[in-house]
Amino acid sequence: MTTDERVAMLHRVADALVANEQTIMEENAKDVAEATGKISDSLLQRLILKHAKIAQLAAGIRAIAAQEEPIRHVLQRTEVAEGLVLEKQTAPIGVLLVIFEARPDALPQIAALALRSGNGLLLKGGKEAARSNAALHRVIVDAIGAPLGGDLIALVTSRDEISDLLTLHDVIDLVIPRGSNELVSHIQANTKIPVLGHADGICHIYVDAAADLAKAAAIVADAKADYPAACNAVEKVLVHEGLGDEGLDAVIAALEGVGAEVHAGERLASRRPSRRLPPAPAVRHEYSSLGVTVETVPSLAAAVDHIHAHGSGHTECIVTEDAAAADAFLLGVDSACVFHNASTRFSDGFRFGLGAEVGISTSRIHARGPVGVEGLLTSKWVMRGSGQVVAKDSGVDYTHRKLPTS
Amino acid sequence: MTTDERVAMLHRVADALVANEQTIMEENAKDVAEATGKISDSLLQRLILKHAKIAQLAAGIRAIAAQEEPIRHVLQRTEVAEGLVLEKQTAPIGVLLVIFEARPDALPQIAALALRSGNGLLLKGGKEAARSNAALHRVIVDAIGAPLGGDLIALVTSRDEISDLLTLHDVIDLVIPRGSNELVSHIQANTKIPVLGHADGICHIYVDAAADLAKAAAIVADAKADYPAACNAVEKVLVHEGLGDEGLDAVIAALEGVGAEVHAGERLASRRPSRRLPPAPAVRHEYSSLGVTVETVPSLAAAVDHIHAHGSGHTECIVTEDAAAADAFLLGVDSACVFHNASTRFSDGFRFGLGAEVGISTSRIHARGPVGVEGLLTSKWVMRGSGQVVAKDSGVDYTHRKLPTS
Repeated sequence: MTTDERVAMLHRVADALVANEQTIMEENAKDVAEATGKISDSLLQRLILKHAKIAQLAAGIRAIAAQEEPIRHVLQRTEVAEGLVLEKQTAPIGVLLVIFEARPDALPQIAALALRSGNGLLLKGGKEAARSNAALHRVIVDAIGAPLGGDLIALVTSRDEISDLLTLHDVIDLVIPRGSNELVSHIQANTKIPVLGHADGICHIYVDAAADLAKAAAIVADAKADYPAACNAVEKVLVHEGLGDEGLDAVIAALEGVGAEVHAGERLASRRPSRRLPPAPAVRHEYSSLGVTVETVPSLAAAVDHIHAHGSGHTECIVTEDAAAADAFLLGVDSACVFHNASTRFSDGFRFGLGAEVGISTSRIHARGPVGVEGLLTSKWVMRGSGQVVAKDSGVDYTHRKLPTS
Repeated sequence: MTTDERVAMLHRVADALVANEQTIMEENAKDVAEATGKISDSLLQRLILKHAKIAQLAAGIRAIAAQEEPIRHVLQRTEVAEGLVLEKQTAPIGVLLVIFEARPDALPQIAALALRSGNGLLLKGGKEAARSNAALHRVIVDAIGAPLGGDLIALVTSRDEISDLLTLHDVIDLVIPRGSNELVSHIQANTKIPVLGHADGICHIYVDAAADLAKAAAIVADAKADYPAACNAVEKVLVHEGLGDEGLDAVIAALEGVGAEVHAGERLASRRPSRRLPPAPAVRHEYSSLGVTVETVPSLAAAVDHIHAHGSGHTECIVTEDAAAADAFLLGVDSACVFHNASTRFSDGFRFGLGAEVGISTSRIHARGPVGVEGLLTSKWVMRGSGQVVAKDSGVDYTHRKLPTS
């Protein structure tokens, strides 16, 4: 399909969502009625589609349509020999399996990204949103039009099929789970298909001996309280012992000032028993709430070791005015995102400027950290010649000259 | 470690290989003596280290040392907000497990690539080369020096440990098998660790209705006979029926002219029984020898469908003078490498100009096609600020301005 055809298709999908809003809302209302009292309030809030949400979804799809063409983009161009030109181009990965929980609004977003990037899509939604998902899927498939619609984007509804799907590693190229840590862990443990995502988000902030305490206070407060349940919220603050009581007090006061429940790490508890903070539940613990652990460390190296031993490789931050310490931390910490003097909450596809966010990956393979549409792409080598042969490498004179990509 | 430290280390390794040539050759001679008569002649040839090979290995390691620094290379730079700059940098993947068969010369090559790219390495060699590998490993570890040597590069010798190693998906980040199709298939089937490589290389050449028959003849002959056992050798030639007897005869004559044993595909055999070519063993078959299947197809679309149904996604070529047909093939065929009017034998890291070759991947995730040192790298997001917070996205004014990377 050409760029224009795929863009036109996305606009048809956006228009169809708006045009069919009433049907979608009716089906959603049935889901909400059935789920009320059976699922938690926060899940219920995510299940509810409102008028504003549908308009926002349509606008988001038009924004995806307006993005630069993601496929056949030339990443490298090389003259291999005279008249023999090699290109590395972006290409669709193939078939994506996206598994999401309650939120039905994830369905059109993901469908739009898959259409834009030329991928086939298998969608598996939560059972609470079954009617909403079916309605959204029908609207999208109709807007794509026969004969492609149902082949490009398929909705899997039965509950049992998930474990079967996870065995299809010769057919499905990538699994993207959007949901709880338990969902992601379960999928990672039960498939050989590559999984784009993260189970845990145990982010650390290290407040260095040379920290500006006002910056440290602002950053730890934001990183914990801006959205405590987010995967990029801070779960542990490591305070350099060189900051003494003053530094430690400033960090704890900043956290308590935004309503955080501060727990003491083992070292802090044993060194400062008088402080009487409740102990941390475990050395590695994701609160996903206003809970946070504060621990002391004797050095930057100890902070780095602590992060490697007990972190999840998501996002870590150093607060310091010492440029050399910052460099040592940014180089030494092996996480998807490493920040100097900035809140861990910036670790996000939209904030990074990637446009639509596919997920945040703590894997080291394929895509790492916040992932935009490039996470749905692979590359392909395209070479154009005029009859060249290898002939034991005497067939051509290799030039291997780098050519401009545009 | 700094770039200079890693480069110096590589030069020490190259020097040590040359200085310890006699010991290495003695250990290798013992392996060769023990294996003689027990393994095939071609495996035995691969096992033998010669003086020229050691010098060549040392030169290869110096070439790797001279390459551009692969890590901390800035891939993208974005001003997220005023004073808040985000970089996407290359970074080592972590721990690689490289499993190779007879060839002991693979050990220093792979060790050098791992050192250059900052990765830890677990090496598992074939038992035929046990003494050679142990000697090479000892020389390399000594050259790296205490205390790092044995920690950076470990050699696994016992036969049983391989299945244990394949379960360590929380510790090992990437498996790179270098050996037979059986080895690669076995590893792919028995691990959840991502595998960089390919089991099959079933490459196709499609000779279009608008082909220049002289180019077609030269390309099919080279693609089959230049190195028949290579994964990028052609296994099946699809000839457009519009070329008639003349075209078919030219292709078959070119193949037979270089000693190829031509087998007929099903459609060719049923339409041209008089030709009396032996039938192909299967519709999907890797000869890894001078054997080759010739099949006829009624159209370019049929060729593309045939390749998708029976190929391995490695390398495919179209021979044609019709630019539109070439574009349709290059876009439509979903393989790691797609060529127009060039031998499939060009599908190789050295010929592509990638420097050292880590392998050829038919996976769509992480790295695809011939893979150089970039296959041993992941990326890492590094952000530098001065105290910025998110504050529900009112903490900064996002600019998302693309900055130059150098």
